Amino acid sequence: MEPLRVGMVGVGTVGSGVAEILLTHPERMIRRCGRPVQLRQAAARDLTKPRAACLAKTPLTENPFDVVRDPEIDVVLELIGGIDPARKLVLEALSRGKHVVTANKALLCEHGDELFAAARSAGRAIAFEAAVAGGVPIIHVLGQSMVGNQMTSIEAIINGTSNFILTEMLSKDTPYEQAVRTAQDMGYAEADPSMDVKGTDAAQKLTLLTLLAFGTRVKPEQFLVQGIDTLELVDLKYAAELGYAVKLLATAKLIDGKLEMHTQPTLIRQDRPIAATDGANNIIGLTGDAIGKTWFSGMGAGQMATASAVVADLVDVAVGRAQLTFPHLDLWGENPPFELHPVENAFRRYYLRFNVEDRPHVMADITDVLGRHEISLASVIQHEAPEHDDVPAGTSPTVPLVIMTHRTTEGQFRRASADLDRLKCLRQPRVCLPVGD
Amino acid sequence: MEPLRVGMVGVGTVGSGVAEILLTHPERMIRRCGRPVQLRQAAARDLTKPRAACLAKTPLTENPFDVVRDPEIDVVLELIGGIDPARKLVLEALSRGKHVVTANKALLCEHGDELFAAARSAGRAIAFEAAVAGGVPIIHVLGQSMVGNQMTSIEAIINGTSNFILTEMLSKDTPYEQAVRTAQDMGYAEADPSMDVKGTDAAQKLTLLTLLAFGTRVKPEQFLVQGIDTLELVDLKYAAELGYAVKLLATAKLIDGKLEMHTQPTLIRQDRPIAATDGANNIIGLTGDAIGKTWFSGMGAGQMATASAVVADLVDVAVGRAQLTFPHLDLWGENPPFELHPVENAFRRYYLRFNVEDRPHVMADITDVLGRHEISLASVIQHEAPEHDDVPAGTSPTVPLVIMTHRTTEGQFRRASADLDRLKCLRQPRVCLPVGD
Repeated sequence: MEPLRVGMVGVGTVGSGVAEILLTHPERMIRRCGRPVQLRQAAARDLTKPRAACLAKTPLTENPFDVVRDPEIDVVLELIGGIDPARKLVLEALSRGKHVVTANKALLCEHGDELFAAARSAGRAIAFEAAVAGGVPIIHVLGQSMVGNQMTSIEAIINGTSNFILTEMLSKDTPYEQAVRTAQDMGYAEADPSMDVKGTDAAQKLTLLTLLAFGTRVKPEQFLVQGIDTLELVDLKYAAELGYAVKLLATAKLIDGKLEMHTQPTLIRQDRPIAATDGANNIIGLTGDAIGKTWFSGMGAGQMATASAVVADLVDVAVGRAQLTFPHLDLWGENPPFELHPVENAFRRYYLRFNVEDRPHVMADITDVLGRHEISLASVIQHEAPEHDDVPAGTSPTVPLVIMTHRTTEGQFRRASADLDRLKCLRQPRVCLPVGD
Repeated sequence: MEPLRVGMVGVGTVGSGVAEILLTHPERMIRRCGRPVQLRQAAARDLTKPRAACLAKTPLTENPFDVVRDPEIDVVLELIGGIDPARKLVLEALSRGKHVVTANKALLCEHGDELFAAARSAGRAIAFEAAVAGGVPIIHVLGQSMVGNQMTSIEAIINGTSNFILTEMLSKDTPYEQAVRTAQDMGYAEADPSMDVKGTDAAQKLTLLTLLAFGTRVKPEQFLVQGIDTLELVDLKYAAELGYAVKLLATAKLIDGKLEMHTQPTLIRQDRPIAATDGANNIIGLTGDAIGKTWFSGMGAGQMATASAVVADLVDVAVGRAQLTFPHLDLWGENPPFELHPVENAFRRYYLRFNVEDRPHVMADITDVLGRHEISLASVIQHEAPEHDDVPAGTSPTVPLVIMTHRTTEGQFRRASADLDRLKCLRQPRVCLPVGD
């Protein structure tokens, strides 16, 4: 039977993993696809670098456009990441009648409209299971298994790097900076970890999930995105003392017919599945009007888990499923999309950590401001401070004060916050985290 | 565009749920299928019973064969359950060129070979997402998302009724019989709860998962199946004291190239996701050689969750995906299937509860037998017994003794158990549960 002819652009970690599955298990591919899968050509940035042994017989090129222009290739695996030249490569592959499998969430988040439209008009499919949550098959689930539902909420840990760092901080009693270095040493974080620790990566993935679940195109600039880079170990410890874990939570949910979205470090009750998701794992909770609440978790990144997702997409193309699924995904914004709920209306509890001068009337000053903004207190922690012998003369000693509020709106909290800024007894930093349901 | 013409056999709980989704959200169906879904005819056992309002305009018949013989129907939803006439209905539907969507795990477990072969030779699809784990899309996941992997293990709670009963017993401090009655009152358990509480239902579902994951056809008679009906509340309490939850665990895993399978109440460490799965929820852990460990959980039964799975299958048929997927599932046993690992070789820790006479040398007698069979003790619980004033004259007072062993084989344990039978100091009942990894 005719083989499926595959071209690979990018032979890094994920590409090598994909090659390993395809080339060391050809019989598995034949069984699943009904025909052989042939890796025709791969493009690598530097041909002199050593390659995985399984790639010894695969023709390599340094020019990725050789791959997308090869008339003997049916499907292009775009695994280089980044925007350029990935965008041009995908567009050219589609225009030349090839299907595309990609793990590139940044590309789809920024240029999804253009790429999806190009695929649609070329009558080709873009499959992107690997773009969100690595091995957790959330794209299949949303695109196929949940189609009987109107989805009503997504809540997810979809940045494994941040989750690893938070887990490392609390379990090893180590500060943020040290945990970031460990994540870098272990290959979980890039040399520049900004995309992960500032929440951008999670927000980009959330936009893809929101597109599939709600048919609504949103950009990360349109909703509240806050990373873990402002957290301190002490916040994780106070949260634990209060019975919560702190997780970088990506949320999209329907409230009164509008979408509330945010990606923020959030306090999650310790008995919830999200709180128990540690290390580089991902978890996604989906709620639908028929199915109720479902949970999906597993390795959100890593060579072979991501490769597994790429291969699943490739088999979908080989069998012809991807070509049927793609046109029916809610990618075009043709159905009445949902408006965004104004962030000021988000109605939540908050964890507040103040760094306050250790002198009389401080508590009264703070609680007076909160009270005037109708924010009521659920609990307070102020541990006995050590003696202040070490404080330099002329400066006031400070102590941490932690307050959990009852539910209030983000708008009310922001107005209170502006008033708190004027209190002389407060020092930097001031930490404010929402508490999950 | 041409509608997909659907016939429904069985308008009970699940059928009414499916009708509700199809008939109250026609626009959702058009969007997902690219064409309307038309419910042409439904067969109900008793036409005089009141129906859901959404079914007011659907033609009803009392003869289910009217539905499968209707030439104007493309897909039959088999939702009556049981073996007869479900088997004949499915066979006739297939022979008349209709696709079949079914939620009937008992039918597929007992007659899957015949039905899958009939579908294959008729060039039609059987879709059965709803047959296992209700709304949790585990059939999609195994049939599509995991295809790059050789699966290496399944461990699952897939009988919501048993899980509800176990949760109810421990959380309400209530005996087994009372918890069964509550499950019946709440509609979770049948009037005759045997299929659920004896482990049969979970074992049947496990055979379907094993067929998909390992391409191996196994019958429940071929592996160890033990239900929750022999458990007492005290076992759940001792397990909790030891840091474990007791769950009806269905397991299939590759060990040295052979499949180890069992469905048994099993002690699971409290910090594992399975232990945290309470009430009527299901959870399935899958391990693959590429993907590592993944978890899927949600409502394992219930009207709308199951209906959601049926509708997902129906959309797969409408779009044409089911027709592509079905022939590529590992349903035919053509690939070298795995042999079963002999149950005697299962190598596990055990929880043992003895009911022993409260007199000297009992502990020595029991531990002597275990020791002679090379079974070593990990921990022992014997709580101080109440005074024995209430014991009738001439009978010996008994006390519970709980032993956790280190790892041993099932065979070794069975031989020890035969010797324990000869000890005069032991009374019934004797409880033995494996401990999960």
